[in-house]
Amino acid sequence: MPDSLDAVHDRLEPIFSPRSVAVVGATRVPGTVPYDIFHNILKDDFQGTIYPVSPRERSIAGVKAYKYVLDIPDPVDLAVIVFPSSVVKLALEQCGQLGIKGVIIISAGFREVGPGGAAREEEILQIARKYGMSFIGPNCLGVINTEPTVHLNASFARRMPAEGSIGFLSQSGALCTAVLDYAHAKNIGFSKFVSFGNKADISDIDLMRYLGDDPATKVILMYLEEMTHGAEFVDAARRIIQEAGKPVLVLKSGRTQQGASAAASHTGSLAASDEIVDAALRQAGVIRCQTIEEMFNNAIALAYQPLPKGRRVAIITNAGGPGVLTTDAAIQERLELATFSDHTREVFKRSLPVTANIKNPVDVIGDARADRYRVAMASALEDENVDGALVILTPQSMTDIDTIAQEVSNVAQAFDKPTYSSFMGETDVASGIAILQDRNIPHYVLPESMCRAFARAHDFRTERERTLAPAVRYADVDAAAARATLDAAIAAGRTQLSPSDAMSVLEAYRLPILRNALARSADEAALVAEHVGFPVAMKVESEDVVHKFDVGAVLLGVDSPASAREAYDTILANVEKHRPGARIDGVFVQRMAGPGEEVILGVKRDPAFGAVVMFGLGGIFVEVFRDVAFRIAPVPPEHVRAMMHEVRAFPMLTGARGRPHRDTDAIEECIQRLSQLAVDCPQIQELDINPLIVHDRGDGCAVADARVLLASP
Amino acid sequence: MPDSLDAVHDRLEPIFSPRSVAVVGATRVPGTVPYDIFHNILKDDFQGTIYPVSPRERSIAGVKAYKYVLDIPDPVDLAVIVFPSSVVKLALEQCGQLGIKGVIIISAGFREVGPGGAAREEEILQIARKYGMSFIGPNCLGVINTEPTVHLNASFARRMPAEGSIGFLSQSGALCTAVLDYAHAKNIGFSKFVSFGNKADISDIDLMRYLGDDPATKVILMYLEEMTHGAEFVDAARRIIQEAGKPVLVLKSGRTQQGASAAASHTGSLAASDEIVDAALRQAGVIRCQTIEEMFNNAIALAYQPLPKGRRVAIITNAGGPGVLTTDAAIQERLELATFSDHTREVFKRSLPVTANIKNPVDVIGDARADRYRVAMASALEDENVDGALVILTPQSMTDIDTIAQEVSNVAQAFDKPTYSSFMGETDVASGIAILQDRNIPHYVLPESMCRAFARAHDFRTERERTLAPAVRYADVDAAAARATLDAAIAAGRTQLSPSDAMSVLEAYRLPILRNALARSADEAALVAEHVGFPVAMKVESEDVVHKFDVGAVLLGVDSPASAREAYDTILANVEKHRPGARIDGVFVQRMAGPGEEVILGVKRDPAFGAVVMFGLGGIFVEVFRDVAFRIAPVPPEHVRAMMHEVRAFPMLTGARGRPHRDTDAIEECIQRLSQLAVDCPQIQELDINPLIVHDRGDGCAVADARVLLASP
Repeated sequence: MPDSLDAVHDRLEPIFSPRSVAVVGATRVPGTVPYDIFHNILKDDFQGTIYPVSPRERSIAGVKAYKYVLDIPDPVDLAVIVFPSSVVKLALEQCGQLGIKGVIIISAGFREVGPGGAAREEEILQIARKYGMSFIGPNCLGVINTEPTVHLNASFARRMPAEGSIGFLSQSGALCTAVLDYAHAKNIGFSKFVSFGNKADISDIDLMRYLGDDPATKVILMYLEEMTHGAEFVDAARRIIQEAGKPVLVLKSGRTQQGASAAASHTGSLAASDEIVDAALRQAGVIRCQTIEEMFNNAIALAYQPLPKGRRVAIITNAGGPGVLTTDAAIQERLELATFSDHTREVFKRSLPVTANIKNPVDVIGDARADRYRVAMASALEDENVDGALVILTPQSMTDIDTIAQEVSNVAQAFDKPTYSSFMGETDVASGIAILQDRNIPHYVLPESMCRAFARAHDFRTERERTLAPAVRYADVDAAAARATLDAAIAAGRTQLSPSDAMSVLEAYRLPILRNALARSADEAALVAEHVGFPVAMKVESEDVVHKFDVGAVLLGVDSPASAREAYDTILANVEKHRPGARIDGVFVQRMAGPGEEVILGVKRDPAFGAVVMFGLGGIFVEVFRDVAFRIAPVPPEHVRAMMHEVRAFPMLTGARGRPHRDTDAIEECIQRLSQLAVDCPQIQELDINPLIVHDRGDGCAVADARVLLASP
Repeated sequence: MPDSLDAVHDRLEPIFSPRSVAVVGATRVPGTVPYDIFHNILKDDFQGTIYPVSPRERSIAGVKAYKYVLDIPDPVDLAVIVFPSSVVKLALEQCGQLGIKGVIIISAGFREVGPGGAAREEEILQIARKYGMSFIGPNCLGVINTEPTVHLNASFARRMPAEGSIGFLSQSGALCTAVLDYAHAKNIGFSKFVSFGNKADISDIDLMRYLGDDPATKVILMYLEEMTHGAEFVDAARRIIQEAGKPVLVLKSGRTQQGASAAASHTGSLAASDEIVDAALRQAGVIRCQTIEEMFNNAIALAYQPLPKGRRVAIITNAGGPGVLTTDAAIQERLELATFSDHTREVFKRSLPVTANIKNPVDVIGDARADRYRVAMASALEDENVDGALVILTPQSMTDIDTIAQEVSNVAQAFDKPTYSSFMGETDVASGIAILQDRNIPHYVLPESMCRAFARAHDFRTERERTLAPAVRYADVDAAAARATLDAAIAAGRTQLSPSDAMSVLEAYRLPILRNALARSADEAALVAEHVGFPVAMKVESEDVVHKFDVGAVLLGVDSPASAREAYDTILANVEKHRPGARIDGVFVQRMAGPGEEVILGVKRDPAFGAVVMFGLGGIFVEVFRDVAFRIAPVPPEHVRAMMHEVRAFPMLTGARGRPHRDTDAIEECIQRLSQLAVDCPQIQELDINPLIVHDRGDGCAVADARVLLASP
């Protein structure tokens, strides 16, 4: 059960906004981490009091030092521990005794170095719990808060970033140093900057929620190498996006199997499959980025400019080629080129040279100076068919770069629509870019990044405003019956439900199973078959026979009482031949589904994300194309529809190539009932409905076969 | 017929290496293009003689000016014309009279402004032909040659680039200015730099061939907005890659329909579909890039470092996070993480701290200094399991960035394997990056770009060394018969072949058609059907009925003489009902194919690329997934196989999901025969074999249906 937001706030406040900080393990030896930490706090103008703790020194950089934490005569809010890992325990114990509530443990040598380290990590966690302390780390770079009333650089980063509205959280300390350098060059400021390391106590989710609630933070950026509490993360991120209205951007590494194993060897974590991570982040409404650069490209758009109300962009350029490249990029990001109103075209015709292209992209021609950019931009942004402006400049011989940068910024600030820019080149355009950055006009080296940022900003606006109905809870289900069947099977030591039990669990959740019954003799098989209706499928019911198809223990299309009788005997004979001595409970007889399209539904229980629901079209679409979609259960109706549409072969169900339109409403209901079943019954480890036969619109669908693997008791 | 390489060389030599240059239209007015051009040539140290031509001035910048070209008393190699478009004709005429052989026409106002301009362009082309002159442009930025013995900046670019081994050709002048600025900041030099504008005379292909032959150029970069002579381009590029061993990189804009139409409104060109462009560039062995940055990222790897012999990389990093990101990127580019030899591991164990990760990625840990980088890099590059090194640095507090940059360069230069680098951040790492760039170690802001460049360099090596067998020419075909059928149909005013003619053309090229004949009565239909063998498909033969299926003029699975007779009458009745008065030549009767997988083969004649061959799997794969591959005819055998494997659904034919392995050899032969037919018969505008039924391995395939559209006479 996650802490309340108030509790998170109380735990983190001493760390982010301390009035006094003890640096435990400070030294006078330059070029060491303890030295850097102490000097960073000191030289970067911390607004409170600093207490160096050092067994050896009487003072450091002129500041009186204390031998032990307990020697400090005043109350202390935050301790930054930089001792070697073996001594951290003792230092932390003293912090507790002094009543310090917030701690940052910089020291490495814990979980990330193996079992011995993990044990040490557990010990310090116990000490923190005992004293009601909260800590960030261990094994981290530290914490930065740029707020002028605090101004704390409790990190060994090379530089303190400028104040800004972006909050950054990173699982990698080293990446932080590169990010700070990158951001400095691009003139990007931060509200809070945190390297959270092993997150033994304070988690990435706690930090994200704190930033969601932090007035100084407008945009939240996270670099993650693992997601250990996926479902909780999704829930927390979704709330921040919808309730606080702040975008959350995540760079999650370990996308490939090799990358994940490199991450594992470096963090000691076990990775969820990347397609589940991807689905979960989408469900949360998080903007997933593939590179650090992409994350900041999107962040500056979100932090500095109004959100676009639509996808219609006006491209303004002084050169045709880059206009074409930007058009390509815009279309690939599913933006639209705005069609200008007649009035706008008139203004263009009046104000631009005859050779100018007044369609979109608007080419103001190579000799354009600031006035022409001003007219083109202002008219475009005034046009109600335009949702934002993308301004491109190439440094031609007549181009007054800096003046244009000024004008672009002036015009942009007069409108409640976003303007992004791309001044192409590097040295010649550098001063122009600096002007744009200074005036909060996002600048992009590549038109591709500019268009992607526009699309992501628009996505975020849509996501923020979406009122997501909760997952449907059907009242007509019989949860108790399903649980009883599952519990009994587990109690009997089974790892998989028998066919008839699987169908009865699905039936309890009103999934459209076909009429079926278990036959214990050939004669009974004929009776049962007649009762459920021909044709039938027949399958041995035996936990000793796993791959039933391979041994001839499944027969399909049985179409008369006589053949049912014969099939019964054949199945038993085949089992006896291939699995002599197998215990047989009978033969499962089920009516066969009528014609329809085959789809696959599934549930998988993921250690980090809990129950995950899967949808795909049958056969090769799943197996060759891996054309499937996932969502975390419970799945809200809107996401049920979204996951169906994500599947590329979905048009097969909606009339592509003159095929019949299938009953997609019935699939929706099945997915929702399955999601409810998965949430209600943690006994289910894995469930496949393969295939679900989908009939024509209005005719519903039918579970032709299902397999349920059970969780270990 | 393209010029010989010698002829191209002779035409371009006066332009690239003139001993004397006339600037025709020079002025003393700063801030104008003519002023910039003249001063660029002068101040950038042209090694020959400059003659300004100006109706008004006696001298410009102290250099004696001439009123008319004909007034120049000396022989002149190159004229750069900067007069307004209306006067270009007269100036060019005088250039011809003076015996000038090379011209650069900077002036705009030709084809790109519409019909009037196109007429002017045609006029100047005629003048050039009359005098045996060659010219670049019109409507261009100019030409730069950095060779010290020439050192010509005949452009109005803001800066002259440094000398280097990259040749750059651009259809957009404005983009050139951005590229020069970008390259300057990244310390990238050029051999030749050309903005070729409207390419009325000298084409992009001429220039590419010249650079292929130019000893100063190692890598050729092109920005294109249109490809008007696609087949010639493919052939020329292929030769440069294989014979001169130089990589060709192309950024072709207009990838999307909207981008293409923006390009068209700006160049006046008509675009080939992007998937054909893509296939053609792949067939040529060209490295296609999506952005200017990607093009230079790849170019510096190709120009500065040895080509990788394999895909196995060693990642060396001082931080885990970036190591994970780089691993992800490497795997996504289909690189492999090298497995180090026991010896290498021993060296790592001996020389790196215990906490270092000695698997790949090698993490030398945050406090690593230059010595540790040196050991890790050198041991990795010595290992025969390693094809190249990717070196990553994050600026941590102990990191001696510049020394590491020096060491990385030293070690790299001692090996015949490539080393690329990514020093993450910006300001702090700037001096380190400058050292790397100065020592020709390619540097990348993003690990993704680094991995992509490695993969492209390896692709190029493979491409260069590939001995491509020529397309197969079957001797057993009857070209004359096919042509006769096609010519007769065209002469009869048809736009599409009748079913029986289509089959006879395919039969002439020995494509596996099914037995068929035309029946002209119900009785004949019964006889013919019996002769070709049941079951048969029957289809009306009538040029007045286009959509035969829709009117019930096609019947399938006819399985007895009686039903054939009945089918004949039904078809005629259906046609009479839906298309009363349609002229009917009979009913086409064809044996139906046995069971198999459906694939589609096609030919399309593209205005730029000539005959293009298409392959895809039948039905939804083509129509929903657009899962098809193209190649330009004639298609070499290796590319026939490559195009088959490009299709994502191809595993459906080779045993996926326990399906039978189909006769893919037979498909190969069909594609090759179709390619030969397409080359031999330009009368074919479009041809579809849909479907081709592919039987099990060894059983061949069969053309179930085909449609041939004819070229206009």
